[in-house]
Amino acid sequence: MGLIVQKYGGTSVGDTERIKNVAYKVSLAKQAGNKLVVVLSAMSGQTDALIKMAYQITDEPSERELDMLISTGERVTIPLLAMALQKLGHKAISLTGRQSGIFTDSMHTKARITRIAVENVSKYLNEDCIVVVAGFQGIDEGSNVTTLGRGGSDTTAVALAVALRADKCEIYTDVDGVYTTDPNIVPQARRLDRVSYEEMLEMASLGAKVLQTRSVEFAAKYKMPVVVKSSFKEGAGTWVVEEEPSMEKVLVSSVVFDKNQAKVTIVGVPDKPGIAAKIFGIIAREEINVDMIIQNVGTTDMTDISLTVPRAEAGKAMSLLNEAAKEVGAKKVLIDEEIGKVSIVGVGMRSHTGVAAKFFSLLADANINIEMISTSEIKVSCVIKRGDVDRAVRILHAGFNLGGEGPRSEKPH
Amino acid sequence: MGLIVQKYGGTSVGDTERIKNVAYKVSLAKQAGNKLVVVLSAMSGQTDALIKMAYQITDEPSERELDMLISTGERVTIPLLAMALQKLGHKAISLTGRQSGIFTDSMHTKARITRIAVENVSKYLNEDCIVVVAGFQGIDEGSNVTTLGRGGSDTTAVALAVALRADKCEIYTDVDGVYTTDPNIVPQARRLDRVSYEEMLEMASLGAKVLQTRSVEFAAKYKMPVVVKSSFKEGAGTWVVEEEPSMEKVLVSSVVFDKNQAKVTIVGVPDKPGIAAKIFGIIAREEINVDMIIQNVGTTDMTDISLTVPRAEAGKAMSLLNEAAKEVGAKKVLIDEEIGKVSIVGVGMRSHTGVAAKFFSLLADANINIEMISTSEIKVSCVIKRGDVDRAVRILHAGFNLGGEGPRSEKPH
Repeated sequence: MGLIVQKYGGTSVGDTERIKNVAYKVSLAKQAGNKLVVVLSAMSGQTDALIKMAYQITDEPSERELDMLISTGERVTIPLLAMALQKLGHKAISLTGRQSGIFTDSMHTKARITRIAVENVSKYLNEDCIVVVAGFQGIDEGSNVTTLGRGGSDTTAVALAVALRADKCEIYTDVDGVYTTDPNIVPQARRLDRVSYEEMLEMASLGAKVLQTRSVEFAAKYKMPVVVKSSFKEGAGTWVVEEEPSMEKVLVSSVVFDKNQAKVTIVGVPDKPGIAAKIFGIIAREEINVDMIIQNVGTTDMTDISLTVPRAEAGKAMSLLNEAAKEVGAKKVLIDEEIGKVSIVGVGMRSHTGVAAKFFSLLADANINIEMISTSEIKVSCVIKRGDVDRAVRILHAGFNLGGEGPRSEKPH
Repeated sequence: MGLIVQKYGGTSVGDTERIKNVAYKVSLAKQAGNKLVVVLSAMSGQTDALIKMAYQITDEPSERELDMLISTGERVTIPLLAMALQKLGHKAISLTGRQSGIFTDSMHTKARITRIAVENVSKYLNEDCIVVVAGFQGIDEGSNVTTLGRGGSDTTAVALAVALRADKCEIYTDVDGVYTTDPNIVPQARRLDRVSYEEMLEMASLGAKVLQTRSVEFAAKYKMPVVVKSSFKEGAGTWVVEEEPSMEKVLVSSVVFDKNQAKVTIVGVPDKPGIAAKIFGIIAREEINVDMIIQNVGTTDMTDISLTVPRAEAGKAMSLLNEAAKEVGAKKVLIDEEIGKVSIVGVGMRSHTGVAAKFFSLLADANINIEMISTSEIKVSCVIKRGDVDRAVRILHAGFNLGGEGPRSEKPH
C-alpha cells in the first residue's frame, strides 16, 4: 500500500492494444491497494510526425508554437488510457500538464519545471481515482504551453512523485533496466540491479538514453527511489537509489557512448586573457550544450580551442563561432562530425586508483586514438573517431570485466 | 479597416499546403488594414480518426475523456497556421479554447458557450498579432476541456465575433455559399446572395450542414453579419443577415433534406392524460434530440405515438422507449430507419398562403407518401421514405422554381 507514480514511454502506448496492456498493468497495482498516478508519453513516432509538419510550413518554427503543436501527442494517449481503466471498472481521469499544476519557466522546447501545484491531482487521488497525467508538458506563468525536451515525461513523473511525496517512481520503457552497456553492441551486457543517483546522472548526461538527465537530478535531490522496468515483460528492473557502501566495491558499473556529437575547432586564437570568455559568451547566448572543451597550449602566441556539441546543434554552433572568430581575430573554424564519445562510469573510481590509466591503455592497445579527454571523480570520458566507438565499447566492457555474473562487476581485473 | 473573425473548416486546413493557402488569404485581409482573429477546425478526418481510437478502447467512452481526446485536432492546426503567418512576416499567436477565454457548461461533447473572457485575445490584437484560435472547444468552470459538437467551430467564430464586437464573421468552407438546395442532387441549384437569420436557422436545424445551428442563433441574437464563402475560390458567398423587406417577396428560398433520421413508434399506448409526459420525460433524461412527434387519434382507448430522432441516437432512444413502454403499459416499440426528411424554408411563407398545399400536391403528384408533417411560420417539413428523398428534392426545387436567374427565386408560380 502506498502512492506510486508510474510512467509509460512512447512504445508502451504505441497503439490502442498497447494502451489496453498498460491499463491492465496499472490495474494490478491499483488492486494491490496503491494510489496511482500514471504519466504517459505520446504514441511513439507521434511527436516526430508533428515536428515534420512544422518543418513543412517553415524552416524556423517559433518555439512557442512548436510547443503548442508537440504537446498534443500526450493529450491523445491520456484520455485513451483513462477510458481503458474505466472499462476495467476503475475510477480514472486524465489531466493535462496544466490541469496537473505543472508550472515551468518559459524556455520553450526545453523548459524546466519550476513548481508543481498538486491540489488537483491530490483531490482526484483522494476520490480514489487513478490520475493519468500528460507527460513532457507544462505551462509557464503566462499560461503558455511549454514542453520539457526529449525524455521530458521522465521528469514529469519524478517531479510529480517528489511533489506528491510518493513512495516510489516506476519508469516503464522498452528495455528491462539499465545495462552495463548497450546489449545491441555487447551481447554479454548485464542488467544492473542498482545504480546510484550520481552514476545514473553521469550515464544520462554521457548519452545513455534510459532516463532524462533532469529527471535523475530531481530524484537525486529529493532521494526519490526510481525503478526502470520493461512494459512488456516481468522483471525486477534497475533501481536508481542512494549510494550504498557495497557500490564502491565495483570499479566501473557501465560503459556509455554517444554517437551524436560533433567537434568544432577555432584555429589560431590569440593567446590572451579574456578571449575564451568572449567566445563562450557568444555560444552561451543561444543555449547550445557545449560538452568538452580543450585548449591547446601552443609555443607561439596563438592557440586552438576545440569543443564538442550535439550534432543537431553543430550548424548553429558553427555560425556563432565564425562570428566569434571574427570578433577575436582567430584564423578559422573547423568542424568534425565524424567523432563519438565513449565513457566509463562508476562510484568505485573514487576509492580505486589507476582506472583512467587502464582505460587509456585498453584503447591504446587496440590502436584507437584519443582526441579529447574529460574526467570527473566517477567517470572517464574520451572523444574518438565515430567508426571506433563500437569496438571501444566492446574492449572496455571486456577489459573492466562487466559481463560477469554478479549484480555489478565484482572484480575489476 | 475593422475587426474581422474568420473561420476555416477542416478541408480548408486539410494538410500543410492548404494551411499555407489559408495563411495567404489571412495575410491579404491583414494587409488591407484589418485586425484579425482566425478560428480553425481540425484537419478533415482527424476528429473521426480520434473517435475511432476511442471506440477501439471501449464501446462507451466517457464523454469527458472523449472531449480531452477530440479537442487535440484543433491544437495541431492552430500552431501550424501561426507558424505559416509568421513566415509571411506577420505577428501571430495560437490560442487554445481555454487561452481564448471560452467558457462553456459541462455538457461534454455538446457543450454550450456560457461566456467569453476576451481579455487575452484583445491583448494580442492590440499588440498587432493575428490571433489564431482553436475552434470547437472550451473549458467548463472546473477547467475541464469541453467540445461544442459537430460544426462547433462555427459557433466559436460567431461567439468570438460577438464578444469582440467584430464588424463581421467570415466562414470559409468547401462550398462557396448557401444554395437553394444541394447541387449534388439538383445541378440547377443556385447560390443565394442573402438569407435571413431565421431562414438560416431553420435550414441548419433541418439538416443543411453549412453552419452549426447554435452559431446562427448567436448571430441572430446579436445581429452579427455572417458571410459563408469558399476557401478555394473567389466569390461573394452568401450573407446571413437581418431580414429585409425584399426577402418576403420570395415564397421559398431553399429545399433542405436530412437522411440521418429514424422513426420510432410506440404502439398501443393507453389514451390517458399524463402518459405522453411520462414517455417524453424518460426520453429527455438522456438529452436525445427528438424532432417530430405524431400521436394518432384512435377510435379505441389506445393510441400510437411516433417520433423522429437522429439515426445515431436511435439505439439509445429504442432502449429508453422500451423502458417507457413497460412503465405505461404500451404494447411494443417499432423502429423504421429507412426514412428521410424533406423541407422547404422561406420567410415569404408568412405573407403567402397555399405554400403547404402546393408542397403536398407536388409530392402527391409524384406518388410520394407523406408519413409525418411539421410546419412553422417559415417552413414545411415532411417525413418520407429515404429512397424518395432525392426525387422529392428535385420535384420541390423545380416546382417552387428555385433554379431561376435572380438572387432569390422571384416568382413562386
